[in-house]
Amino acid sequence: MEDNMEKVLLHTPEGVRDVYGKECAVKLTIENSINKVFNIYGYHNIQTPTFEFFDIFSKERGSVASKNLYKFFDREGNTLVLRPDVTPSIARLVAKYYMDVKVPVKLCYNANTYINNSELQGKLKENTQLGCELINDDSVEADAEILALVVDSLKAAGLKEFLVEIGHADFYKGLLEECGFDTENEQELRKRIENKNYFGVEEILDNNNITGQLKEAFLKLPELFGSIDVIKSAKELTDNKKALQSIERLEKLYSILEDYGVSKYISFDLGMISNFNYYTGIIFKAYTYGSGDQIVAGGRYDKLLGQFGKEAAAVGFAVYMDQILLAVNGQLLKENNDYSYEVIIYDPEFRKAALSLTNALRDQGVKTELISKKENISLDEYTTFKKEDGATKITYVSKDGAVEL
Amino acid sequence: MEDNMEKVLLHTPEGVRDVYGKECAVKLTIENSINKVFNIYGYHNIQTPTFEFFDIFSKERGSVASKNLYKFFDREGNTLVLRPDVTPSIARLVAKYYMDVKVPVKLCYNANTYINNSELQGKLKENTQLGCELINDDSVEADAEILALVVDSLKAAGLKEFLVEIGHADFYKGLLEECGFDTENEQELRKRIENKNYFGVEEILDNNNITGQLKEAFLKLPELFGSIDVIKSAKELTDNKKALQSIERLEKLYSILEDYGVSKYISFDLGMISNFNYYTGIIFKAYTYGSGDQIVAGGRYDKLLGQFGKEAAAVGFAVYMDQILLAVNGQLLKENNDYSYEVIIYDPEFRKAALSLTNALRDQGVKTELISKKENISLDEYTTFKKEDGATKITYVSKDGAVEL
Repeated sequence: MEDNMEKVLLHTPEGVRDVYGKECAVKLTIENSINKVFNIYGYHNIQTPTFEFFDIFSKERGSVASKNLYKFFDREGNTLVLRPDVTPSIARLVAKYYMDVKVPVKLCYNANTYINNSELQGKLKENTQLGCELINDDSVEADAEILALVVDSLKAAGLKEFLVEIGHADFYKGLLEECGFDTENEQELRKRIENKNYFGVEEILDNNNITGQLKEAFLKLPELFGSIDVIKSAKELTDNKKALQSIERLEKLYSILEDYGVSKYISFDLGMISNFNYYTGIIFKAYTYGSGDQIVAGGRYDKLLGQFGKEAAAVGFAVYMDQILLAVNGQLLKENNDYSYEVIIYDPEFRKAALSLTNALRDQGVKTELISKKENISLDEYTTFKKEDGATKITYVSKDGAVEL
Repeated sequence: MEDNMEKVLLHTPEGVRDVYGKECAVKLTIENSINKVFNIYGYHNIQTPTFEFFDIFSKERGSVASKNLYKFFDREGNTLVLRPDVTPSIARLVAKYYMDVKVPVKLCYNANTYINNSELQGKLKENTQLGCELINDDSVEADAEILALVVDSLKAAGLKEFLVEIGHADFYKGLLEECGFDTENEQELRKRIENKNYFGVEEILDNNNITGQLKEAFLKLPELFGSIDVIKSAKELTDNKKALQSIERLEKLYSILEDYGVSKYISFDLGMISNFNYYTGIIFKAYTYGSGDQIVAGGRYDKLLGQFGKEAAAVGFAVYMDQILLAVNGQLLKENNDYSYEVIIYDPEFRKAALSLTNALRDQGVKTELISKKENISLDEYTTFKKEDGATKITYVSKDGAVEL
């Protein structure tokens, strides 16, 4: 086989991958555990198409730049897009099937998403997300339910140490409104805050004559994270009504999360600025050891459904499975026994005996692989591969009866 | 909202769809049941990327015409394809990770596939397939295991009446070799047989001076289906070694399927000609009531892995979930209780009481939706929607305690 042919025929495209062996068993086990939590909270599974019309994910509704979308055409020449994110699809689905429903609609999903990142970033281009969306409820109780779901989902994934950091889109928006910036200054300020370039932040503020308490508040942003008390103390930094209301909402949220018994996993960060366009209330991310990237992201998006013709409040999140797998790698891969199985190898003439032994095990729920032994493959070759692969017991059925190898 | 905007924003592209509500719950329940059967037989789950390099699915290896593939480009200009079929991806995966393994490798999957059929056919373009592949085993025992798996999978899906029709690629190939046809005649003959145009078949045979026993055998093809006895009687129709060996293989297969206790679901069809290029041995399809199309397709493909540089025998199948859903529609959608859930609605000031009631139910494994009652939505509106949706019990927590609505 030529080198070039081999490259193309054995390799997967850059940024996508095969999941197999124990990792796949762990992935599916964790996905099932998380989905059970979603269902126990009364969330119903939905599946949207892998690709949709471009407009569903365009600038007004989507969170991913157009150049990073996988695009192609249908037979009519419409532009189709592999979904980069599930939330806009759910907003469409709710507008389509639940247009006149005013009571809460609670949906969950397990779906792959596709972002054509530049190769240089080394990020996966196909990712598995499990998420929930709570539609038609603008209450702080809804925010709390979603955050309790995040905590219970991560616990169900087997994580013991993790932190959910919560911010509020309105705190920053309130401060920004006070500045009266044009779009250019606004974008530049956001960029510098995201890059934690606070010399640069001060420069923009000075150039625009933002002084006193307001300037202080911006420069304090990187310090406004930690316990609920830090957040309370931020009330002294501003008189802006929107910013103050966002703090009060977070305080109320925290007290409900205490009732849920999940407050020890919660931290706050008023300096958090989401790069998703559609968030309007709380925004949050979760982190753990073993994965530098966020394992969960979410927030409130009360304006997105309006884009699809249904004015409705909404809050939701996604768990990033590939990051979870990085986090549980090592620890859980060893502990997880869901891959383990038994093997029955038989000499062809003892097929019936081997089959009834196998059926008895399978009826008991034991995963059992049945193999007809070939003359040209030694018992050693079978046992070496299968034991390395994770088989816990190998039995050989022959004229000598059933013997464990 | 303008009509055109609404069309684009609420609709999914032709041939793909949302799965939601009870149908989604039923789909996931059936998928879990089938996957459990795969695992209990010792098959290990794998996940391949949704898109791969074009060459993986090109003419030599794929089963779908190039014009019906969804194609797009990566940043380097390589042509990528949404997988139309999972088997070639698994052949690649096995060649990549199990190149030197000689003992059986047993893999299973749950994946969506994408075929850009012409709109006129009214077929779905995104389909969910669950399948198994048994690599490195050319034995009739391997064929039997795969067929027993098909039967047990369909039973696990909740189907009670179905039939697995088995043919053998070599029966037709053997007869064809005797004719010594060129490619053009070969293709024309295949086409006429597939269309059941037997006047046309006779015409080609006559034009090429195919007479006597061989002509008879071709003309008898449409009758060569039914019980194992019909198949045995076909031995009298030909002296062709390949054709006779294929019948002997099916006889042996049947006797093993009797040991598995699944023979009552089996039928034979020597006239079956697969439209998949890669089958070399048994080929089979399963049918049931409620779906005109096949619900399972599979067969032996001993040459496909060689295309990826690994000479290895293989046999496998796929269950077509969307056809299964059509088949169980009506019957199972009513019976299935996996969607059912309870609802606790509370007046905001009784949040803690409602939460502890909810937690108690969730701890018992009861799916429980918690809703904070809004002043502007009546209890009636909540109960009407939730009962229609499938809620089995609705409790209202207020100053009057917990009252069932």
